[in-house]
Amino acid sequence: MIVVMKQTADADDTARVAQHIEERGFSLHISKGEARTIIGIIGANEHELDSDSFEVLPGVEKTMRIMQPFKAASRDFTQKKTVINVNGSQIGGDRVAVFAGPCSVETREQILETAYAVADTGAQFLRGGAFKPRSSPYSFQGLGHEGLEHLAEAREKTGLSIITEVMSVEDIELVEQYTDIFQVGARNTQNYPLLKALGRASKPVFLKRGLAGTLEELLMSAEYILSEGNMNVMLCERGIRTFETYTRNTFDVNAIPVLQNLTHLPVIADPAHGTGKWDLVNPISKSAVAAGADGVMIEVHPNPAQAKSDGAQSLTLKNFAALMKDLKRVAAAVDRSI
Amino acid sequence: MIVVMKQTADADDTARVAQHIEERGFSLHISKGEARTIIGIIGANEHELDSDSFEVLPGVEKTMRIMQPFKAASRDFTQKKTVINVNGSQIGGDRVAVFAGPCSVETREQILETAYAVADTGAQFLRGGAFKPRSSPYSFQGLGHEGLEHLAEAREKTGLSIITEVMSVEDIELVEQYTDIFQVGARNTQNYPLLKALGRASKPVFLKRGLAGTLEELLMSAEYILSEGNMNVMLCERGIRTFETYTRNTFDVNAIPVLQNLTHLPVIADPAHGTGKWDLVNPISKSAVAAGADGVMIEVHPNPAQAKSDGAQSLTLKNFAALMKDLKRVAAAVDRSI
Amino acid sequence: MIVVMKQTADADDTARVAQHIEERGFSLHISKGEARTIIGIIGANEHELDSDSFEVLPGVEKTMRIMQPFKAASRDFTQKKTVINVNGSQIGGDRVAVFAGPCSVETREQILETAYAVADTGAQFLRGGAFKPRSSPYSFQGLGHEGLEHLAEAREKTGLSIITEVMSVEDIELVEQYTDIFQVGARNTQNYPLLKALGRASKPVFLKRGLAGTLEELLMSAEYILSEGNMNVMLCERGIRTFETYTRNTFDVNAIPVLQNLTHLPVIADPAHGTGKWDLVNPISKSAVAAGADGVMIEVHPNPAQAKSDGAQSLTLKNFAALMKDLKRVAAAVDRSI
Amino acid sequence: MIVVMKQTADADDTARVAQHIEERGFSLHISKGEARTIIGIIGANEHELDSDSFEVLPGVEKTMRIMQPFKAASRDFTQKKTVINVNGSQIGGDRVAVFAGPCSVETREQILETAYAVADTGAQFLRGGAFKPRSSPYSFQGLGHEGLEHLAEAREKTGLSIITEVMSVEDIELVEQYTDIFQVGARNTQNYPLLKALGRASKPVFLKRGLAGTLEELLMSAEYILSEGNMNVMLCERGIRTFETYTRNTFDVNAIPVLQNLTHLPVIADPAHGTGKWDLVNPISKSAVAAGADGVMIEVHPNPAQAKSDGAQSLTLKNFAALMKDLKRVAAAVDRSI
Repeated sequence: MIVVMKQTADADDTARVAQHIEERGFSLHISKGEARTIIGIIGANEHELDSDSFEVLPGVEKTMRIMQPFKAASRDFTQKKTVINVNGSQIGGDRVAVFAGPCSVETREQILETAYAVADTGAQFLRGGAFKPRSSPYSFQGLGHEGLEHLAEAREKTGLSIITEVMSVEDIELVEQYTDIFQVGARNTQNYPLLKALGRASKPVFLKRGLAGTLEELLMSAEYILSEGNMNVMLCERGIRTFETYTRNTFDVNAIPVLQNLTHLPVIADPAHGTGKWDLVNPISKSAVAAGADGVMIEVHPNPAQAKSDGAQSLTLKNFAALMKDLKRVAAAVDRSI
Repeated sequence: MIVVMKQTADADDTARVAQHIEERGFSLHISKGEARTIIGIIGANEHELDSDSFEVLPGVEKTMRIMQPFKAASRDFTQKKTVINVNGSQIGGDRVAVFAGPCSVETREQILETAYAVADTGAQFLRGGAFKPRSSPYSFQGLGHEGLEHLAEAREKTGLSIITEVMSVEDIELVEQYTDIFQVGARNTQNYPLLKALGRASKPVFLKRGLAGTLEELLMSAEYILSEGNMNVMLCERGIRTFETYTRNTFDVNAIPVLQNLTHLPVIADPAHGTGKWDLVNPISKSAVAAGADGVMIEVHPNPAQAKSDGAQSLTLKNFAALMKDLKRVAAAVDRSI
Repeated sequence: MIVVMKQTADADDTARVAQHIEERGFSLHISKGEARTIIGIIGANEHELDSDSFEVLPGVEKTMRIMQPFKAASRDFTQKKTVINVNGSQIGGDRVAVFAGPCSVETREQILETAYAVADTGAQFLRGGAFKPRSSPYSFQGLGHEGLEHLAEAREKTGLSIITEVMSVEDIELVEQYTDIFQVGARNTQNYPLLKALGRASKPVFLKRGLAGTLEELLMSAEYILSEGNMNVMLCERGIRTFETYTRNTFDVNAIPVLQNLTHLPVIADPAHGTGKWDLVNPISKSAVAAGADGVMIEVHPNPAQAKSDGAQSLTLKNFAALMKDLKRVAAAVDRSI
Repeated sequence: MIVVMKQTADADDTARVAQHIEERGFSLHISKGEARTIIGIIGANEHELDSDSFEVLPGVEKTMRIMQPFKAASRDFTQKKTVINVNGSQIGGDRVAVFAGPCSVETREQILETAYAVADTGAQFLRGGAFKPRSSPYSFQGLGHEGLEHLAEAREKTGLSIITEVMSVEDIELVEQYTDIFQVGARNTQNYPLLKALGRASKPVFLKRGLAGTLEELLMSAEYILSEGNMNVMLCERGIRTFETYTRNTFDVNAIPVLQNLTHLPVIADPAHGTGKWDLVNPISKSAVAAGADGVMIEVHPNPAQAKSDGAQSLTLKNFAALMKDLKRVAAAVDRSI
């Protein structure tokens, strides 16, 4: 960490900062420039330093961190890319993983019909929400336990692995009995009690970026899971909130290569939430694969106009099959398969 | 709700939308303009309609809602402003409520020293976190149960009422035994299981706006609590995330009068999180009171440089006392007291 | 336009709105719902109505527009895609246009070396700034007239067409003598005197989206040019400003298919400004082409570490040649050529 | 400037950075930590260094600036606050300056009626646009020269000083013959040719923050004016663009005390653009004065429903008079007058 002193700071101010550093067990280097004095803090573990405690000292203008605040999620931790194995399918390897299915599990028939169609295209993962975080208390809140039963039946019948959202600590035990992958939604991306508990669970975690979450914050949330011992975490870019209102969110395609520079964890794209409009899902899915995504999550519904949630951003079964053909071509153009 | 058809939509498209409306038990009015056909949906309960289901029908350009999606939180529900009574102090009345104390309860001595100083200024509420949502798993996570004990002792000794954060459903029962007001932090503002459970609790809820939460979303989160029966909810503007990096967040002072137009619930300001810098807390607190806030939450610490969290935005006891004097003058200038 | 009345509005309020509408030569339809009265304004030219004038009338809650505010730029104006012909090369056709070159023209040698390398890859357009909008008055401001001379020589020697930025009305005449395409930068995207003057110029205009410009605003800026008679306008997505600081801007890949839905004008991507980092230019260029961009603008420099501007986001000649190979594969995968 | 090397950087990488620094005439200090090597660049004029040129060198992770990039606008330049004198009225002194008038000058009668009403309240400055930047080419574009004539007549009759917007370099000479203060609007805040030309003009400049402009960028724009010799610049916070759609913009009240920390220039608030709604102008004006603004700009119109622009955010003459009374009380509460 670097501490930059104000132009008006005097020797006492600098001495006070130096003492503050030494009290915390770090050493320091003072550099007096013509315009500013700068103090470099020397020591292996910058994470233990709280920049706040310096910024309130008299004469301090600002502090700047040298290191990323995440460790286990960092490329510094391991240069080798994490590959997550789920029932024989890999996430983070050469093949682009496809997670497809309805926003919500609505009926046994709906999820089975979708699952068969998804399996037919060669996708490996069936998504479907049983516990739904809805912005209105008056909206459909999901089938709960019954939805999990339907997902399990769909897995049995199609061989797809399943992924479903978990919204609170008390549901983890139940959901873990059914799912192959836990999904953490954008609204819970900084629900730390949930993340810690998932860090002690046995199944991989699919962690979505928050609506206004920086990439650093996403990696810090992953760090909560990793630091408890669960190393099978994949990250999902799902659009961020900006001033643009034509789309529901702004899909941050930059996040894909940036995260791959910063972390060894697989990076998945969610073009449905990233756009909010079904007719943008095809081009944005292709853009995500071209940018190097390790997977895509696609909302698919047999009849989007009757969907109980997210119909506007769901593909029909037929449009999903067409998308899979398009994605295979784009994946091949960047030396991946689907 | 209004459905706007595309210029290229034909009679079949319109008929399909009409049928979709009628199947849901609503009636409609079709208006054919020169450039667009517009369909008005008539019926009392627009909340039951999912705009998504219309937007996927062929020929539909967009939908527009007429009504606000919140009900119990709305001024339509009651024109009378909600006043919340806590141990004889009112929130939402003529007097501006002041919630002051450290970010975290760190030691018995720290919270007692702060509590006495807060009480001396005439403030009524002591804040202090026992369960802390920290962005890093390596940071201080709060004293937990022990922190609640210290808060209770501070209440006993000073007569201040206490407010503390609750982060998960399983902690509600414990926290409720101690606190006078539950605080829900910005990261949990869309933690719906938590909001529903607090809707069944007996103590008032202090609900912070999310980092990138719209005012509508904040009111929908309040609606989750209200719809379960707990009508004592106050809303808190605590800064939103923008592109500006000089401050930690951008304090949205507009939110204060806007919320007071939209809802009957009290509106509180949190200038510490809204700025992230202690030297901005004084001017922004004054601006909030001048804009009509029903209360302010202030972070106060006996020694900010040694604080375990949020030191950079905490006032010293002396600066807090000075702020209280300043606020009394501004409150008087807008016909309020403190 | 739809006018939504407040719940508390009375018959006088509604009558006043009706009179206001009729005074402006429009007719209306009043719909009294259980909760709200809604007034539809009927007439061909919604653009002439100022929503502000309604929102100040007593009893009005809000207004909502039915139509897009742009006309000549709209798909309603023509369903046929605009193809711009520049010296025999087409922009907006099957072939993806590539605009490549340094941020600034720095020396004759620099631009010639770059031009030869660009031409070798099969790209058709040479970019290079002679007038530079720099955020600091102390930074290099461009070679001006001399830079235009160098660009013209490079065109002569390589057969590339040239594109360069114009920053003010008084420079248009000079720049027009040299350039094949005018570039309008993000900072001038709402410089209306400049846009109007370019609407009367004879060369095509390459119009960049503003840093915080909505897609609607971008189309309204295009409308300024189109409405003066210059129909050869192409639009450029170059990243928007968000809270994310890891990248210089957030490249809004959604904008590509959205604009292609809304307008007949060609849509170009600028991944250099959209990311700010040279090592992200390759993946983001591929993502833009996969999403359907009609062209890409790439910053290329013989020696980025010595560049006088934007070195951090410039490709070396070698990396640019490699990118062109990669883009050809992605273009083919979406049925385009480069 | 600090250069942080990657964990994987080797001695050659560090040597190359060192050479790059020395070639530019700076000296350096290398600090090898356990995890990273850090290179401090030593020299008085950090402004001359382009961080881009370092970021493309192999092995460089990032650069961090020590100094603010603005100089003449900085508190380092002078600790004494700038007070601007216009016809005997001061801006930046103890008295809060009030700039009031219609968005556009529409007719002689309209501006005279408004001017008399403004003068009656004790305000000192009459605003009114003659050249109008409108987002639609189909909207009223201002009266131009005729509008300036009306403003001059209003000044003659009331003694108010006048302020009006200038949109392009070629209009400066004309506008300067009439106005007392040049206004630069949000859309031109980075129109550098305009700023440079105003830096050579003889009248003070009222510079608005850009829609998505950081405070640093605003100060860099001021620097363009100051560096040409015009030291009479005042800065205006007028709301920034965020995700919140209930208000037209988000008024960034934090900007007021932050700017006063960073610069010696006066800071004005524009609550009309900062909110977009006339009924929010009163509370937000009070909040701005409470936060320490040196002035407020208020849109006032004799009949907002008939205004040709910005009617929705304009006060009636009566509401403006009431606001002035309210502001006097708030100003007194923070030891200012109006």
